[in-house]
Amino acid sequence: MKARVHVMLKDGVLDPQGEAVRHALGTLGFAGVQGVRQGKVIELDLVGSDKAAAEAEVRAMCEKLLANTVIEKYSVEIV
Amino acid sequence: MKARVHVMLKDGVLDPQGEAVRHALGTLGFAGVQGVRQGKVIELDLVGSDKAAAEAEVRAMCEKLLANTVIEKYSVEIV
Repeated sequence: MKARVHVMLKDGVLDPQGEAVRHALGTLGFAGVQGVRQGKVIELDLVGSDKAAAEAEVRAMCEKLLANTVIEKYSVEIV
Repeated sequence: MKARVHVMLKDGVLDPQGEAVRHALGTLGFAGVQGVRQGKVIELDLVGSDKAAAEAEVRAMCEKLLANTVIEKYSVEIV
């Protein structure tokens, strides 16, 4: 089974990496970009076939390792 | 309009960051993880309401700046 985790900075937390991308896009002539936020995506290959158990386990991984929940939010998708 | 871009290393390209995450998860006791790939997700706020035009523009951004197409693949989603 595969799981996909998105980790993004929480709204309101300054994102200098996204801001740098926005600025670079402007420099390259892409004028219609109002804002950019950059985050991480983590794809996991999991053993087992119980979707609910897998999602619970991946959420535990996020809390323990994958996300810094002080400044980051995460979402889990089982695919 | 919002666009979401996923940038992942191509299959077959070594992903040391993902490998480090896999190893760390094993150390923390998550035994059922067979593989991990880590990539970037970029969320863009765009001006305009033409979905097709937006997608074409975001693809151009990926080719020019957001992805290194030698080793990375990308997917674009208009949300």
